[in-house]
Amino acid sequence: MTLYLNLAEQLGARIEQGLYHPGDRLPSVRALSQEHGVSLSTVQQAYRHLEDLGLATPRPKSGYYVPLERQVPALPQVNRAAQRPVEVSQWDHVLELISSSPQRGLIQLGRGRPDIASPTLKPLLRMLSRQARRQDPEVLTYGSIRGELRLRGQISRLMLGSGCRIAAEDIVVTTGCHEALSASIRAICQPGDIVAVDSPSFHGVMQALKGFGMKALELPTDPLSGISLDALEMALEQWPIKAIQLTPNCNNPLGYIMPEANKRALLALAQRFDVAIIEDDVYADLAFSYPRPRTIKSYDEDGRVLLCSSFSKTLAPGLRVGWVAPGRYLEQVLHMKYMGTGSTAQLPQLALAEFLEAGHFEPHLRRMRAQYLQGRDLMVDWVSRYFPAGTRVSRPQGGFMLWVEMPSGFDSQRLNRTLLAHGIQIAPGSIFSAAGKYRNCLRLNYAGKPTPALEDAVSRVGEIAGQLLAELPEPV
Amino acid sequence: MTLYLNLAEQLGARIEQGLYHPGDRLPSVRALSQEHGVSLSTVQQAYRHLEDLGLATPRPKSGYYVPLERQVPALPQVNRAAQRPVEVSQWDHVLELISSSPQRGLIQLGRGRPDIASPTLKPLLRMLSRQARRQDPEVLTYGSIRGELRLRGQISRLMLGSGCRIAAEDIVVTTGCHEALSASIRAICQPGDIVAVDSPSFHGVMQALKGFGMKALELPTDPLSGISLDALEMALEQWPIKAIQLTPNCNNPLGYIMPEANKRALLALAQRFDVAIIEDDVYADLAFSYPRPRTIKSYDEDGRVLLCSSFSKTLAPGLRVGWVAPGRYLEQVLHMKYMGTGSTAQLPQLALAEFLEAGHFEPHLRRMRAQYLQGRDLMVDWVSRYFPAGTRVSRPQGGFMLWVEMPSGFDSQRLNRTLLAHGIQIAPGSIFSAAGKYRNCLRLNYAGKPTPALEDAVSRVGEIAGQLLAELPEPV
Repeated sequence: MTLYLNLAEQLGARIEQGLYHPGDRLPSVRALSQEHGVSLSTVQQAYRHLEDLGLATPRPKSGYYVPLERQVPALPQVNRAAQRPVEVSQWDHVLELISSSPQRGLIQLGRGRPDIASPTLKPLLRMLSRQARRQDPEVLTYGSIRGELRLRGQISRLMLGSGCRIAAEDIVVTTGCHEALSASIRAICQPGDIVAVDSPSFHGVMQALKGFGMKALELPTDPLSGISLDALEMALEQWPIKAIQLTPNCNNPLGYIMPEANKRALLALAQRFDVAIIEDDVYADLAFSYPRPRTIKSYDEDGRVLLCSSFSKTLAPGLRVGWVAPGRYLEQVLHMKYMGTGSTAQLPQLALAEFLEAGHFEPHLRRMRAQYLQGRDLMVDWVSRYFPAGTRVSRPQGGFMLWVEMPSGFDSQRLNRTLLAHGIQIAPGSIFSAAGKYRNCLRLNYAGKPTPALEDAVSRVGEIAGQLLAELPEPV
Repeated sequence: MTLYLNLAEQLGARIEQGLYHPGDRLPSVRALSQEHGVSLSTVQQAYRHLEDLGLATPRPKSGYYVPLERQVPALPQVNRAAQRPVEVSQWDHVLELISSSPQRGLIQLGRGRPDIASPTLKPLLRMLSRQARRQDPEVLTYGSIRGELRLRGQISRLMLGSGCRIAAEDIVVTTGCHEALSASIRAICQPGDIVAVDSPSFHGVMQALKGFGMKALELPTDPLSGISLDALEMALEQWPIKAIQLTPNCNNPLGYIMPEANKRALLALAQRFDVAIIEDDVYADLAFSYPRPRTIKSYDEDGRVLLCSSFSKTLAPGLRVGWVAPGRYLEQVLHMKYMGTGSTAQLPQLALAEFLEAGHFEPHLRRMRAQYLQGRDLMVDWVSRYFPAGTRVSRPQGGFMLWVEMPSGFDSQRLNRTLLAHGIQIAPGSIFSAAGKYRNCLRLNYAGKPTPALEDAVSRVGEIAGQLLAELPEPV
């Protein structure tokens, strides 16, 4: 990410957090230049960017101010209902989402797909093509169950950026993060076991719990700081929880980054109650701030954290290459991986190793971070313009998903069905809950380059949401 | 397969079955030409092939005779021990086998890998390369959880050859046959459930049973006709079996093709006791006889057979593309697939669809069948020459694996460890049993083109096997 975007992001966050109130004067260009050690023109660029986003207004000969009229939608509410472990439902709605193909002209605002049209991906396609042309038996045969050593070496380096020193031997390549999570869950838990999860939470994990006959305990989760540690502690005291599964960095679907102190406190709780942590890190390289946030795994001392990730969000999901650093559960995870799929495909592993070795990954990430940051601001803007009053939205600090909360009683599954007739798909909130909560919420993807057709689609979602909302009985 | 090889195969089978005895005159060239409706020169070619294999000897002006001195090793014995459901062990030995990489100059006689050096695979590599160059978002994105429709259409056509009429909508593409089997098992069984299996049996399935906490009931299996129907019926009466898992065509590791009548009888038993059948068909397109054998699925009327297969044995395992036709269990299998890996990689699916549409698959199969048939005959010949007296071997009717049985008391795990120092790997028989039986057996791969190095490796295996055998105490 460029310097000015980084600075704009920091200033924007301060404004959003209410450090400056509507009408307040913002710090001078000179002051910011000194504070951040950047040039005056970088600060000016940052302010112009904030101006574009409606977060700052210039007054001639005076400086920048927080706009008076600005209305950022409120944050989603934290679900505070009493929690107990439940069996997972919602498979039918997940199946609907994942059965859809991109070919049919559907605008898929619901799926967790990155932008795959970036020119920075071209070297990867070239390398895939070249590996296939090499006609090397390596490409067509079974590799080791652990994955290609060259690729594991590169992943090991990559993880240094998140504060982890993990040797290639302690990494297992998987068929996407999906298999990493699925194998990790099975490595630790038996049917009937309870897994604590942040809530809302990734539907893939919850459907895995369903399939293996495990129960999910959904914990209250703050839209800015993540899973409630108090609630987690109470739950650990009350229930025989086997593992905590969460996405602390650039959470899906809420987009928050859990503060470092909370990550350490969560690890301490896991140690005290002797439970494993299954950490999903798949969006973390797309954090808008630099350097990228640390993982809980980076504080892990006794191998209880299983770090799961993939290239599906940073590069391309169709590669189906992920990995897990399973700590002390290495052997069990290997067994679960073998049971599930045998070894991972060779061709994409070899091409990825080459792509990383050639240094193409970091420039690609920089570009995508900047694009997604702009995409987020635009999507928030569109939602505040086109959605009915009372709509709340998350404040993603990375990734490419916005969580939208409508007034209670709203039915996003009905919204989705209505939209399908218009060639638009959203992800209904209920699939992010084991028990089908968040029916009044939806998740929107802002990965794609903004186009009039995209804005039109979002405005259509807002319009139809407004119509459905108007049909609801008045709250008493 | 060419006409003469097909005829040679039929004649060879009759000789092996003892229809003609050593010293007997074989049918005249003219008689065979009329009987089979082929040219005289085709019959002569077939006889020359049998001569090469040591199965026929010409006598001038008289015709062909069964050689007097010929010694084909005896068949492996059927395990007849009393059976009960057991938990699966042997993971450590399986892990050893699958952790090995082909790169290190190891001669992998143990792994289930086809020959991937055939020129008939070149179009596939070209198509993989071209798909990657197209830079179509389709290649990089998530596809439908069911798999690429074009590929499913081709698989549907392919299955007509096995007597199955299955629509593309009833097929799910998977990450190899491994995932097809794993998802099928989980779709039907719960932890603690009993699955009846042929024995010896594919280690991948048994390790899946282990991982999911299910029990395997290993049934006596004839090396020529497959699972014992009497034993199966008794087991179904005695135990609450949930599913029968077997590989009736070109069985791994024994190589037999179950007679059609047995397939129908097995299905009738499954109907009578209302259990599902998980049919592994992954080697069946490599049957040495033409047309390829029918599946049990082809007789299925009420959707209780889940047919699992892949391109890993016919084309290349590194693609990781398989499929399942799950009958009435479609929805459960989709859920299990989603839990395990999400959707399957797009690039190999698109390249495979193109390869099949262009008609490249059938010529490739013809070539591989002929190669593997010659490989089998050569490997049997090598084993009879280089292995100690008392060695028994299977009679593979397809595929590329030979099952070798040494006298009881022999330890093939020790053999494997000793061989590794010589850069040779075999598959110890114990991994093909839930309870670690068949320790005196091993599986050899004859897929590769014969080379002096390969013959040398097999003779080394035989030599060291002889040394280990000599160290055993005399049987009492």
